[in-house]
Amino acid sequence: MAEQNLKIIKIGGNIINSDIALNSFLKDFSNLSGSKILVHGGGKKATDMSSKLGLKPKMIGGRRLTDRATLEVVTMVYAGLLNKKLTAILQKNGCNAIGLSGADANCVTAHKRILKDIDYGFAGDIDQVNTDSIQVFIQNGMTPVFCAITHDKKGQLLNTNADTIASELAIAMSNVYEVELNYIFDLPGVLEIFNNRDSVIPHINKKKYEQLIEKKTISDGMIPKLHNCFNALKSGVQKVNIGDASLIKGLDNLYTSLSLK
Amino acid sequence: MAEQNLKIIKIGGNIINSDIALNSFLKDFSNLSGSKILVHGGGKKATDMSSKLGLKPKMIGGRRLTDRATLEVVTMVYAGLLNKKLTAILQKNGCNAIGLSGADANCVTAHKRILKDIDYGFAGDIDQVNTDSIQVFIQNGMTPVFCAITHDKKGQLLNTNADTIASELAIAMSNVYEVELNYIFDLPGVLEIFNNRDSVIPHINKKKYEQLIEKKTISDGMIPKLHNCFNALKSGVQKVNIGDASLIKGLDNLYTSLSLK
Repeated sequence: MAEQNLKIIKIGGNIINSDIALNSFLKDFSNLSGSKILVHGGGKKATDMSSKLGLKPKMIGGRRLTDRATLEVVTMVYAGLLNKKLTAILQKNGCNAIGLSGADANCVTAHKRILKDIDYGFAGDIDQVNTDSIQVFIQNGMTPVFCAITHDKKGQLLNTNADTIASELAIAMSNVYEVELNYIFDLPGVLEIFNNRDSVIPHINKKKYEQLIEKKTISDGMIPKLHNCFNALKSGVQKVNIGDASLIKGLDNLYTSLSLK
Repeated sequence: MAEQNLKIIKIGGNIINSDIALNSFLKDFSNLSGSKILVHGGGKKATDMSSKLGLKPKMIGGRRLTDRATLEVVTMVYAGLLNKKLTAILQKNGCNAIGLSGADANCVTAHKRILKDIDYGFAGDIDQVNTDSIQVFIQNGMTPVFCAITHDKKGQLLNTNADTIASELAIAMSNVYEVELNYIFDLPGVLEIFNNRDSVIPHINKKKYEQLIEKKTISDGMIPKLHNCFNALKSGVQKVNIGDASLIKGLDNLYTSLSLK
């Protein structure tokens, strides 16, 4: 039996911050044929809103702590403002989008992260993706649009990394579909030379990845992203790509494709 | 063919503002058997958030104008904060809730209201309810939870009265289900004597409604609510009730039931 294909695309950073870039991307996304899921981060809107409300970021050991006030802000901005904005623009473009948090139809459950006596507040680590619910949407021609909010099934919403939501969705859905996971960010791919956009590495396998870490070619921010990618590949995801918004245009653009071997 | 029953319940006011009242209501709602839809207003949270952000309400001819900044706030508060809070609490109570705005799966489309040269900003009057999408959710055991945000299918979100969303949903769904529409508010029903909670009118038909308006028994705030109710009854909704949160407990409580005859 030939499995159906499913494209999962995660966006963040500048695409979210610029209306022009966002509209252009969402048009391209709407034109993608076949089943697809969009996952979005928050861009700088949550930080802007926090500072408008007079909230100061709380950090523990270099990591941001999601206190109750911050959870309210990210729930408002991610699940409200951004998720509904994206959904409305996709609807305009003829894509039957449905905006979702992990709480909706119980799509993504998580637990509150507590590491070595440090309580990171309302930060969630994913437990389970409810593929049945997500399939209902896809089989009925809807395109799920996930924001970075999950829940613990005990009434608590949780702030969850959007890259991780994308990879966990990809892993879970790979039991039912042939999944291609695409991370879209502000660079055309993983760069061999820092800040040189012409030095995109077209292909990275597990061995190359380890070499890049060893040689300190890839930056600190890139390491968890690539870790997520390889985790997805090891767990059954067919294909993983990293690049900028031109990645989904279907043109012969440069980007980084990843594989285990 | 016996049609299936569908209960539509609209909440607002104090239930939304008090965590204790909200949790208690959502537990009762979760225990309701059969297909159901929840519609919620915004309580005072949107006003609180607006004032925290330094926004001043703009009024034209006694009506609130939804300017761009206000639309952002209501989208954040209604579709983000409140809608996801309600959904997470319902999930905790074993109700497979799915939080929705009108943009999600194109459930409710509207147009921007412009009346006699007055532009009310991003206030939406409903054009259409997409019963197919809503049936997909219900037939798959999901319980739709609607906030008071719609869209115009041209990329614009719109602020829409929650009472009207409830009645338009009820009217549209009455083509497919036997629909009971319940408005839950802060009083035990429509009162015969102002401020006397023991004077609930148990039954109001069209004639009695007209008499109540004529005698000025019912308050200005109640008139559009009753207008919505009778509009729903005229348009095919089977049953309409108005009361406080005890309405859905299935006990022999006092409330106001409405009918045409």
